[in-house]
Amino acid sequence: MTTDLVAAVDIGGTKIAGALVDGTGELLHRVQRPTRARESAENVMGAVTEVVTGLTDHPLWSRVGAVGVGSAGPVDAREGTVSPVNIPAWRDFPLVAHLAKTTGDLPVTLVGDGAAIAAGEHWRGAARGRRDALCMVVSTGVGGGLILDGRLRPGPTGNAGHIGHISVDFDGELCPCGGRGCVERIASGTNIARYALASGWRPAGADGDTTAAGVAVAAAQGDPIALEAFERAARALAAGIAATATLVEIETVVVGGGVSQAGDVLFTPLRRALSAYATLPFVQHLDVVPAQLGTDAGLVGAAAACWNSDTFSGQGPLGT
Amino acid sequence: MTTDLVAAVDIGGTKIAGALVDGTGELLHRVQRPTRARESAENVMGAVTEVVTGLTDHPLWSRVGAVGVGSAGPVDAREGTVSPVNIPAWRDFPLVAHLAKTTGDLPVTLVGDGAAIAAGEHWRGAARGRRDALCMVVSTGVGGGLILDGRLRPGPTGNAGHIGHISVDFDGELCPCGGRGCVERIASGTNIARYALASGWRPAGADGDTTAAGVAVAAAQGDPIALEAFERAARALAAGIAATATLVEIETVVVGGGVSQAGDVLFTPLRRALSAYATLPFVQHLDVVPAQLGTDAGLVGAAAACWNSDTFSGQGPLGT
Repeated sequence: MTTDLVAAVDIGGTKIAGALVDGTGELLHRVQRPTRARESAENVMGAVTEVVTGLTDHPLWSRVGAVGVGSAGPVDAREGTVSPVNIPAWRDFPLVAHLAKTTGDLPVTLVGDGAAIAAGEHWRGAARGRRDALCMVVSTGVGGGLILDGRLRPGPTGNAGHIGHISVDFDGELCPCGGRGCVERIASGTNIARYALASGWRPAGADGDTTAAGVAVAAAQGDPIALEAFERAARALAAGIAATATLVEIETVVVGGGVSQAGDVLFTPLRRALSAYATLPFVQHLDVVPAQLGTDAGLVGAAAACWNSDTFSGQGPLGT
Repeated sequence: MTTDLVAAVDIGGTKIAGALVDGTGELLHRVQRPTRARESAENVMGAVTEVVTGLTDHPLWSRVGAVGVGSAGPVDAREGTVSPVNIPAWRDFPLVAHLAKTTGDLPVTLVGDGAAIAAGEHWRGAARGRRDALCMVVSTGVGGGLILDGRLRPGPTGNAGHIGHISVDFDGELCPCGGRGCVERIASGTNIARYALASGWRPAGADGDTTAAGVAVAAAQGDPIALEAFERAARALAAGIAATATLVEIETVVVGGGVSQAGDVLFTPLRRALSAYATLPFVQHLDVVPAQLGTDAGLVGAAAACWNSDTFSGQGPLGT
């Protein structure tokens, strides 16, 4: 029997998704459960097992040769463990061992969710054909992953590309991670809304949306505080992106996640700010493009990371 | 005739050095000239040609199979051109074409000086045997290069690892590069001295040394302003190093250059600050070590980059 499919699992703080994925990135069968992130380690793993069982019970399962997992981080790909910030009961949780057991000892490739999204956008999305790219998610948090020399660089532990927690303000505010002035602390949706509210912005609409989406609506209507909140976030993102480009040389930045739905409200000041921070000749021509895969990026990317991995001998779509 | 040697050329703002280098990194024959950095493009190239002629005239030249060049940046390895900030007459200067002509059309590998130093420290210095490392120089400027997956990552244009020009203070002072709050703008020797003097520090010694070396002497004697100047530089360096580790995952940071000669005056606050910025689990165990190759790093590294390159078919010391 040919094993021409992989099983992809995407573990986030809100939902756990799984899919059977073919060599073109098509999701042939999907399963999803809520994460129950505040419950015990066993209960969270119970939700994962339900998702995986929904895959192993499918007739196509016999064609699956490997399992790829993207998980909220930090992860430790060397140890096969995960410690997602937003799943408190999982600390050094041996996810890979559990998944191997549930899937009949198939090889399991683990990467962080940022790396998974980068692998997905590179395989089937906005970074297709790009040799060196940063793919980021700007949402309640800020995450990312790197494509270098045409391949995912997950890094030894699977966490590379963690752009949300680099400091662009070394004397700035403490971040929950323990650092100071992290990109996420300034530019995440949560922090855009926090900054706007602290600066006196109030939602005009009857719905009273005080999230970054509400700030984006106000900014699009010309509200000066809302515009300033996005401007500041865009500068922090630009400084982080420019740092990445200056350190590793990239040609493309893919930006996805809820906050990127603000469109021009984010992308216009972001591109402007980039020209102020990405000043050396070799970083001046960065392409900034919206993500294409939406919420599927994690699953497609977990599959891609798995095809890409040395642990799986199937014919892979990456590096071929 | 076996071609078991390479010719290494190191182009800086002060001197141009050349050497014949064997497969163990031994410098078998050296030549050096002042750069004449303020003169015409032809005169600067004249100095390079004198260095290269000093190599081609040597009896060992017949065993040379390739040329490796590390140059002050920015460089453009794709185009074979260099535009060193501190050599104003060279803008998009076709260095590789000139070198190919002078060396009888041997293959020429060009990388930035930061990448060269990283390749050198990885081959024969403090990063030997390390899979993922940042090697930096803290001197009148701040530069660096990256080793990823056991190989130099010069990036497509040869400039990767340019840590001196990432922003750690996005609302900070303008940098001559055009950016704001760059690591170099805070932590280079020039800027350590500038900050100390602006804060009221004056050299105590009869020699009146107002450089970073003078500030280091004062700091070692407990002068509070001098200590604060190194503390601030160390925090900026730490934020930049932590950013690098968070983005690409490294295990080791090698720090060389004149300012690193300050020893504990720099390394103690640097290690302390790193624990404040490198907070995520996968970056908490960074080794910070002094460079080992001194001023030879550029030549050894230019040779290493050349052995490492696809353009040279000789048996290489790297990736073997």
